[in-house]
Amino acid sequence: MKNHTLLTDLYQLTMMNGYLENNIHKDQVVFDMFFRKNPCDNSFTIIAGIEQVIDYIQQLKFDEEDLEYLRGLKLFSDDFLNILKNFKFTGTIYSVEEGSIMFPHEPIMRVKATSLEAQLIETAMLNIINFQSLIATKAARVCEAAKGDSVFEFGLRRAQGPDAAIYGARAAYIGGCAGTSNVLAGKMFGIPVSGTQAHSWIQKFDSELEAFRAYGRVYPDSCLLLVDTYDTLRSGVPNAIKVFKELREAGHEPIGIRIDSGDIAYLSQEARGLLREAGFGNVKIVASSDLDENTIYSLKMQQAEIDGWGVGTNLITSSGCPALGGVYKLSAVEANGKLIPKIKISENPEKITNPGYKKVLRIYNDSSYAEADLIMLEDEVIDEDKPLTIFHPTYTWKRKTFYSYRLKEMLVPMFIDGALKYRRKTVDEIRNYAQKELSSLWPQYRRLNRPQVYKVDLSKKLWDLKNSMVNSYRED
Amino acid sequence: MKNHTLLTDLYQLTMMNGYLENNIHKDQVVFDMFFRKNPCDNSFTIIAGIEQVIDYIQQLKFDEEDLEYLRGLKLFSDDFLNILKNFKFTGTIYSVEEGSIMFPHEPIMRVKATSLEAQLIETAMLNIINFQSLIATKAARVCEAAKGDSVFEFGLRRAQGPDAAIYGARAAYIGGCAGTSNVLAGKMFGIPVSGTQAHSWIQKFDSELEAFRAYGRVYPDSCLLLVDTYDTLRSGVPNAIKVFKELREAGHEPIGIRIDSGDIAYLSQEARGLLREAGFGNVKIVASSDLDENTIYSLKMQQAEIDGWGVGTNLITSSGCPALGGVYKLSAVEANGKLIPKIKISENPEKITNPGYKKVLRIYNDSSYAEADLIMLEDEVIDEDKPLTIFHPTYTWKRKTFYSYRLKEMLVPMFIDGALKYRRKTVDEIRNYAQKELSSLWPQYRRLNRPQVYKVDLSKKLWDLKNSMVNSYRED
Repeated sequence: MKNHTLLTDLYQLTMMNGYLENNIHKDQVVFDMFFRKNPCDNSFTIIAGIEQVIDYIQQLKFDEEDLEYLRGLKLFSDDFLNILKNFKFTGTIYSVEEGSIMFPHEPIMRVKATSLEAQLIETAMLNIINFQSLIATKAARVCEAAKGDSVFEFGLRRAQGPDAAIYGARAAYIGGCAGTSNVLAGKMFGIPVSGTQAHSWIQKFDSELEAFRAYGRVYPDSCLLLVDTYDTLRSGVPNAIKVFKELREAGHEPIGIRIDSGDIAYLSQEARGLLREAGFGNVKIVASSDLDENTIYSLKMQQAEIDGWGVGTNLITSSGCPALGGVYKLSAVEANGKLIPKIKISENPEKITNPGYKKVLRIYNDSSYAEADLIMLEDEVIDEDKPLTIFHPTYTWKRKTFYSYRLKEMLVPMFIDGALKYRRKTVDEIRNYAQKELSSLWPQYRRLNRPQVYKVDLSKKLWDLKNSMVNSYRED
Repeated sequence: MKNHTLLTDLYQLTMMNGYLENNIHKDQVVFDMFFRKNPCDNSFTIIAGIEQVIDYIQQLKFDEEDLEYLRGLKLFSDDFLNILKNFKFTGTIYSVEEGSIMFPHEPIMRVKATSLEAQLIETAMLNIINFQSLIATKAARVCEAAKGDSVFEFGLRRAQGPDAAIYGARAAYIGGCAGTSNVLAGKMFGIPVSGTQAHSWIQKFDSELEAFRAYGRVYPDSCLLLVDTYDTLRSGVPNAIKVFKELREAGHEPIGIRIDSGDIAYLSQEARGLLREAGFGNVKIVASSDLDENTIYSLKMQQAEIDGWGVGTNLITSSGCPALGGVYKLSAVEANGKLIPKIKISENPEKITNPGYKKVLRIYNDSSYAEADLIMLEDEVIDEDKPLTIFHPTYTWKRKTFYSYRLKEMLVPMFIDGALKYRRKTVDEIRNYAQKELSSLWPQYRRLNRPQVYKVDLSKKLWDLKNSMVNSYRED
């Protein structure tokens, strides 16, 4: 891994230097990472990138070259640069399990550390979680539209740089994709890789038929042919069928065809007819060509004869919603051994933060469906033997009481006093966990368009604290 | 730099293995990299990322671990893996200068290499050029809207992964930004970095005034204060003025204020009034808050009192148009020492490729404005002493004749037979070149909305070749 210690906004460093100069750099502070809005008008967000945040925190080290560069900016004291030289993260981070489904305003990561340490890690942590969570969520949407068909991530060439391709492939797999075209991501994370041939292969030969035959000779048992280089129905599919017959005569069964342009619904139905007539009704038809969840949904509605979907640009960039707006806000400051809650006020009510050292509980019903989440102060305890009543934080008359329920704490220890406490997982474990999380959501939350809003309420104690703090600021 | 040799689509490797099995892996082929559409309905694209393509090509090396992984996929012959073991790029690449302004369908990079080599490098090359060119172009749009005000790239936390932040900051600077918040990008490329304090600094202290004072104490000569944590006009600006007065009394001049929320037009005008009244009319007012070229354009129209713009999410992700669709298409194959032109046909006329080994000429008028581009075959020669007539490739009756003009060849050697021929440049040199390129465009091409379409014509010889090839395919 590259040294990403300087992957931070300059203001983190000017503030850190300022905390030192004001002798408050060792004060313990609490920051919450959360987002205010799900991407793509989805009703949930799949959190991904936790393992990369661990990597990032563990590799933090200002080397000589970094310090030299910072000295050259003439903004920092020598004392400060000396502190950086020995910098090590010694704080405590609680985080959700990677692959968790989370909702707006819920703490995803909760950092308690010195103001120096907590400030430095903000930017890279946001960068990592924002992007991977965005792509995992987009992938879940695309897979939802594909209703069980395999979806392959094919976006490497259009991803926003190498890391976006690599970690985007990882996140897409966590979100539900079956594989990627990206060989490096396949190697790094053990993600299944897939790919056959491009138009250039077809063009390279004197004829399409010759190109297909040449491919079948090399890959007789994994022969999937791209049929749209010249004319899908008049040339591509008939030539593919010829080669499929030759393969079958030689004892091999072909895999199928790929259509990369044109009217996918019509072409796939016609192609299926031709293939069936020739005795290849069961081969796969894979589509690729500027697909996204809406196009796939429409094509499925039209009964396109597609078994697998290769999704590129629109998945890997989350086109239409290319950023998750995760933020990292101060929620408490320690003074004399006690945590003092802090709040950020805004004209925009959505932007007012939840103060204090908090946790998130998920409430499940008897059949393991998630019913609502509750944000509470860390020291609050719920007696699970008693009914639990929650209320909407704005429309407080909207109440709901659970009589039979199960609770789950969403935040688990990641680092305690600088020591890693989080068990690292394989990407397959994370993917399985995300799929389990998805299956705990009622269908109305998984709907692609205008899904139902999932309930995220505040405990009475947190609600009271927040309101009293807001009111005290507005009294002036 | 990470080893990015496996940063490719699996199908490149399956095709390469297939070329070997068919014994055509050493055939020389020509690929053009080009795009079909400018991003964001712009009329041009600034090409960026050339230096990173050089890095990528120079680092290509399959190490033992890579080969082990590929062997495990059970797709490749031992002969092929042995070839990869000794893989080295030995081909010839012509490319535009980094920072060049280019238009749809023009070759940006022209690769002539063995089919093995040319195929491997496609995906990473596209990934790099697509992303950086996208962001450089988006930045040029944002800077165009800001009409000479400084624009700072502040998007690190919302970028699509670490590389997108780092290379996006580089591309944004090339496109015209004045600096970035990204310290690592600052260090790597010598880009000016900027940043002061976040809301967390203000919240960390018992009051806003105390927070401002603490900042002024540490940075008396670079004091720029964030005024919207509690209430911009009732608290932030009055407190900032108090601290500015104290600084001035102590012999320091403040830099200004930053507004990060609310109605930027109204707040900046009111803030300017308060500052002027207090004797600080000339300090800078910087705005940040979900800005893009359209918002900046509107705010300028409303005479917002802003001197500098911090642009985050919408610049670094090129929100609204998050991908440039650059492609890489086979245009010729060498047979018996001669280049045979190749074409890809499509139902969609925009997707039919230009065949043959080609070059791009830019036609300038006497006052150094670019008038049109001409795509020609490499061996064509223009006699600059004679008038030059060009014609529209579809509406061929649209003709234009130049009597006094100057030509520039856009493609220059980058690698010849594997040896680097391109002079590496500093990012400042590239930025200056891009700005010079921008100034060669008439204003109608730089307009943000519905700009005029720049002329890109084909030479008569290329036009004839293309038409005869299309017709021969459609005759069947």
